[in-house]
Amino acid sequence: MSGRPRARALGVTFDGEPGPNNGITDVPGVLVGFRTLIRGQGPLRVGEGPVRTGITAILPRPHAEVLTPVFAGFFRMNGNGELTGAHMIEEVGQLALPITLTNTHACGITRDATIEWARRALPGALDATWALPVAAETYDGFLNDINGGHVTASETLAAIEGARPGLVEEGSVGGGTGMISFEFKAGTGSASRRVALGDSAYTVGVLVQANFGRRRNLVVRGHPLGRRLPTAPGEGPWGPPPSAAPAGDAPEKSSIVGVVATDAPLLPHQLGRLARRMPLGVAWTGGLAYHTSGDLFLAFSTANPAALTARDGALARAEFVLDTHLNPLFDATVQATEEAILNALVAAEPMTGRDGHFVPALPHDAVRRLFA
Amino acid sequence: MSGRPRARALGVTFDGEPGPNNGITDVPGVLVGFRTLIRGQGPLRVGEGPVRTGITAILPRPHAEVLTPVFAGFFRMNGNGELTGAHMIEEVGQLALPITLTNTHACGITRDATIEWARRALPGALDATWALPVAAETYDGFLNDINGGHVTASETLAAIEGARPGLVEEGSVGGGTGMISFEFKAGTGSASRRVALGDSAYTVGVLVQANFGRRRNLVVRGHPLGRRLPTAPGEGPWGPPPSAAPAGDAPEKSSIVGVVATDAPLLPHQLGRLARRMPLGVAWTGGLAYHTSGDLFLAFSTANPAALTARDGALARAEFVLDTHLNPLFDATVQATEEAILNALVAAEPMTGRDGHFVPALPHDAVRRLFA
Amino acid sequence: MSGRPRARALGVTFDGEPGPNNGITDVPGVLVGFRTLIRGQGPLRVGEGPVRTGITAILPRPHAEVLTPVFAGFFRMNGNGELTGAHMIEEVGQLALPITLTNTHACGITRDATIEWARRALPGALDATWALPVAAETYDGFLNDINGGHVTASETLAAIEGARPGLVEEGSVGGGTGMISFEFKAGTGSASRRVALGDSAYTVGVLVQANFGRRRNLVVRGHPLGRRLPTAPGEGPWGPPPSAAPAGDAPEKSSIVGVVATDAPLLPHQLGRLARRMPLGVAWTGGLAYHTSGDLFLAFSTANPAALTARDGALARAEFVLDTHLNPLFDATVQATEEAILNALVAAEPMTGRDGHFVPALPHDAVRRLFA
Amino acid sequence: MSGRPRARALGVTFDGEPGPNNGITDVPGVLVGFRTLIRGQGPLRVGEGPVRTGITAILPRPHAEVLTPVFAGFFRMNGNGELTGAHMIEEVGQLALPITLTNTHACGITRDATIEWARRALPGALDATWALPVAAETYDGFLNDINGGHVTASETLAAIEGARPGLVEEGSVGGGTGMISFEFKAGTGSASRRVALGDSAYTVGVLVQANFGRRRNLVVRGHPLGRRLPTAPGEGPWGPPPSAAPAGDAPEKSSIVGVVATDAPLLPHQLGRLARRMPLGVAWTGGLAYHTSGDLFLAFSTANPAALTARDGALARAEFVLDTHLNPLFDATVQATEEAILNALVAAEPMTGRDGHFVPALPHDAVRRLFA
Repeated sequence: MSGRPRARALGVTFDGEPGPNNGITDVPGVLVGFRTLIRGQGPLRVGEGPVRTGITAILPRPHAEVLTPVFAGFFRMNGNGELTGAHMIEEVGQLALPITLTNTHACGITRDATIEWARRALPGALDATWALPVAAETYDGFLNDINGGHVTASETLAAIEGARPGLVEEGSVGGGTGMISFEFKAGTGSASRRVALGDSAYTVGVLVQANFGRRRNLVVRGHPLGRRLPTAPGEGPWGPPPSAAPAGDAPEKSSIVGVVATDAPLLPHQLGRLARRMPLGVAWTGGLAYHTSGDLFLAFSTANPAALTARDGALARAEFVLDTHLNPLFDATVQATEEAILNALVAAEPMTGRDGHFVPALPHDAVRRLFA
Repeated sequence: MSGRPRARALGVTFDGEPGPNNGITDVPGVLVGFRTLIRGQGPLRVGEGPVRTGITAILPRPHAEVLTPVFAGFFRMNGNGELTGAHMIEEVGQLALPITLTNTHACGITRDATIEWARRALPGALDATWALPVAAETYDGFLNDINGGHVTASETLAAIEGARPGLVEEGSVGGGTGMISFEFKAGTGSASRRVALGDSAYTVGVLVQANFGRRRNLVVRGHPLGRRLPTAPGEGPWGPPPSAAPAGDAPEKSSIVGVVATDAPLLPHQLGRLARRMPLGVAWTGGLAYHTSGDLFLAFSTANPAALTARDGALARAEFVLDTHLNPLFDATVQATEEAILNALVAAEPMTGRDGHFVPALPHDAVRRLFA
Repeated sequence: MSGRPRARALGVTFDGEPGPNNGITDVPGVLVGFRTLIRGQGPLRVGEGPVRTGITAILPRPHAEVLTPVFAGFFRMNGNGELTGAHMIEEVGQLALPITLTNTHACGITRDATIEWARRALPGALDATWALPVAAETYDGFLNDINGGHVTASETLAAIEGARPGLVEEGSVGGGTGMISFEFKAGTGSASRRVALGDSAYTVGVLVQANFGRRRNLVVRGHPLGRRLPTAPGEGPWGPPPSAAPAGDAPEKSSIVGVVATDAPLLPHQLGRLARRMPLGVAWTGGLAYHTSGDLFLAFSTANPAALTARDGALARAEFVLDTHLNPLFDATVQATEEAILNALVAAEPMTGRDGHFVPALPHDAVRRLFA
Repeated sequence: MSGRPRARALGVTFDGEPGPNNGITDVPGVLVGFRTLIRGQGPLRVGEGPVRTGITAILPRPHAEVLTPVFAGFFRMNGNGELTGAHMIEEVGQLALPITLTNTHACGITRDATIEWARRALPGALDATWALPVAAETYDGFLNDINGGHVTASETLAAIEGARPGLVEEGSVGGGTGMISFEFKAGTGSASRRVALGDSAYTVGVLVQANFGRRRNLVVRGHPLGRRLPTAPGEGPWGPPPSAAPAGDAPEKSSIVGVVATDAPLLPHQLGRLARRMPLGVAWTGGLAYHTSGDLFLAFSTANPAALTARDGALARAEFVLDTHLNPLFDATVQATEEAILNALVAAEPMTGRDGHFVPALPHDAVRRLFA
């Protein structure tokens, strides 16, 4: 692990009780892998670099079981982004295979490579199941040689192969490597919550790839920090803002992709409800789904594997949480989404990318002061 | 029963095996009730008549159990119509309470009256459950004093109270009383199919309120009957077309509401898929969801009552048909929808309504000749 | 006007610039009418009272022009509520006729009565247009004799007839009369924002019927006020919480209906985007779309009346805001939604309803202290 | 051109008036390009072949103008397929860039390669516009080495570069090369209709990649041809059925992707309505959206280029067809969809693919006999 700080280390207080890793991997069986591609500096030469990108792989189940579907739901808060596999999720309420997150010009590659991985790693298995994997993206062209083809099939396979349980790296790692939020360096963040329902306890885990938001809108646990921070070079003690607006006069190609996992047994339509609440956590940090953003949210449950692989007869049985007990899961989803975004911001260090483009880090002191 | 003929009596052949009633009531526990309001003739006097309208009540479960929800799904093929309760169905995948079908200006009355019925018939029950009933409509203002307030709360209560199993009346009955399809008198129709899945057999039952379609488009089991039938008075042996275009220069306020019921255990997203296939059966009869039409489709499953009333602990278990076994249910849905529409047309007799507006019946001879 | 205070009067500061009324009526031509029904006290006698309910009518255009459609969009954040007319809005991107807001057991009555109003007030007009009005609801059965039939067609007609421009009454008025938010008395609230786009200025106006939220979640401009307020009788200086949980062990039938109006020219899909951002403003106040809530949002634009009434030829032309200029409208929508909810809370006075059920007001002092 | 026959050449009669090419290219500016990859025979060797696949490119506007968006709409009839870019279409009602159709394991490649094409062919252009192209797929693994990586970025670029107006090749070409419908060889098909609206005439053009349907369900213009054709080897004069069920006991990975283009000016929500009617044309041929199918439909209008590139000020104006004039466009969409599917079947010749898998052609004689 990177040893990078997380929001709680700066004194930020949150609602709810996190799991041991405070990450999506607290959901048993969920694995996360990264390939972080950072190479070169100086002027952009397409195909050479500088490279500031990567791939995040989320496995809903361990490698050997990843063809066993999970019930899933999807929500489009704002559609200017890509997340493949969504038609299938809305139709059959399931997904299988690893999920990949990367940059906007490469999620096709990671999608197809995920099929290739399954074919190689689990011979014969694809014959009897879907090959419509989820691959999503946010835009890193301000820092990265996004047209250079640096995200490849083999890097995708490596990200998937390397997926593991435990602490989740955050900040400028994997698909989040070149990402920016609130005009600060951001990227990958994760968090989790424990939820007691009846006699059982479940976990809700979130992973975000955060690449959205205007600095003026940044809110940290109710504190409007963004409007107190400088927005022009030399204005304050926390370093300059990004060296240029992320995309000049061009569309601001910002986005957030959020994935919520749980071991609570939920049916597809219930998972859609979880996904639909993730933007409320985004709103708590100041994200308002601006026009150019692709704000796409996915939810899955690892429960009911037997129901999802049943082949004997025509029927199966699925367990599900009664609707009257869903609110604690909604709370957990919103809370973990908020914390995952702040973790992405806190963990990320300043980065200089292509053409000398610079993005500062969120000033930790400013955050600490709020909670002193 | 009315003893009115059905499509099969004219020699029309269909695919699939119907249940004993060849109606939605073949699904065990599903009841249908009607109030048919036909009074007066001559010029329209709002509030007096002529009255050609009514109410159809569909109970997903018998009266005493109708507060036990059923899993449900919804599909909007064309939205120029009303079907209340749909937001709840899309959110929680359930509905409870009787479903009512009536005319466009009265489905608010039947909606609220359904709540009143539940409060009176099942004291205390509403305290703990939803009161967001489904009430849907199609337009009968060509024949009926639609603004006259003839559909009342008490008539709604009577339709619900009168719901029963067995043969379903068809044609100009209940909500279908004043309805027109393909420029012929139509209204209520029903049909069912038996489906074997694994070791079990299930029933798919459909009820439609048919009020859609241009004569030129009418197709009967592949035969383009509509284009062979006269469209001007005195053109042929089957009687004249409607005495005027159903709504003159005004929008043609046509529609079809379709309800598919089954005892096969299906989850909400699977029921949405059944509903989404009903328009394919409509298309087989020549319905193309023209602009002004409200083509709204509802599906529910009577299975899993225990899961839907569970209160102990936080979890329940629901049985469901494996996706790989759904196609026979899709076939049954499309087939029963097609037959229900043709039954509505075959059963309906010619009608003269307000201001002498006349709508002929589908000429039975013309149909018989096709299948001779 | 009631002279009731609004959030700004307590020192609460907001983002953005409000219009002269700081209400939905700042959008030219938009009118609001109320019927507030408060009668009786003591034990509930169904049909007699106590009555704590009403009707809010929103006219997208003045009475004489209200059959001219407006482009419209809809968003279901949580579907456990009713808002009729939504299928039409999603299909053709338009609505016409007054919009009514009332209690859960009466929105059918107000729907049908709206058609009756149009028929009487604008003779002949319905022949050529839709009769699928929007009627929405939230639940007031904790305070009100909700089954008593007190909301009638004639009261609905009066609410519509009485609609007017100018300051919007807030709190326990109209459809908001019996509503509760964050375990405080709430109901109707409104706010507006001015937005400059290019050379022109437009208005975004919001009206909410607020009936949602747990006290512990209440946030006022970032301040977690709810968790600092007492939740048991006698706990603090602000008066007791509601005399019982709003619905005991039964489903908490809470909800919020939000309507956003603008004179900025927007196409239907753009209005859907506005509606989809209203829940972000709700989230800022602590609303998380809990299970039992019906959180339904409607947006319309009064622009393009000529395009919406064109009858010559087959084509019309509509003006629309470029997508690249939408963000200020999104900001305005979220800001006005937040302020409208707080206005509903601040304006409402304590209320005792049926069976002595008591709901306290939000303690103004506690709010003032936050902003001192 | 291939000189392959089309359905009309067999005597099949259709409704409506086709354009000069009776293809999607009758819509001015719409271009179609193909790369057809047929290599090798014998046993499957992944990476070597046999290859029976390809790429179809549809350009909504000519190459130099293809970054000018078109208004667009989408409909998911059945979601077991991929069509990227759909989130953007549903959000902003637009698409830009070429559309590619290919096999299930390669639509990621063609998606990313489309971005690469735009970057190379139109330097600088991507800085200011979207890079979320539409790439869709159907499954050809019964005949093709689908895992062999034969669809490459350079083949995609060639398909796009080669797009041109005029007659559209049909059958086993482009993305349709390895496709099967009703257990006959199928693939790419196209058709068009001329529609008069007011004083103007417009074109509706359809292109399908047809890979769906059970033989027993095949209907040709109302004739249930499928049930009259043999389904076992040697049963009849028309050659054997496919040498094995397309995917044995595994999921039948069938699908249809349909694209409808028009020069009639339509707004996004109106285009969504066109897309939603395409499955009705599919139903007329016997397609019932079986479980495993990905039935995804896209509609776009080439009108309003100025409104879609406006940059001066905050507003633009779009022309649109009045809703009351939409029905002829609905008719045209359904008719052209039906004919495009039959064209795909008629044009395709028998094919032997990997492992000797054989798929017969639709017997032309059997069709001719129906219309003799």
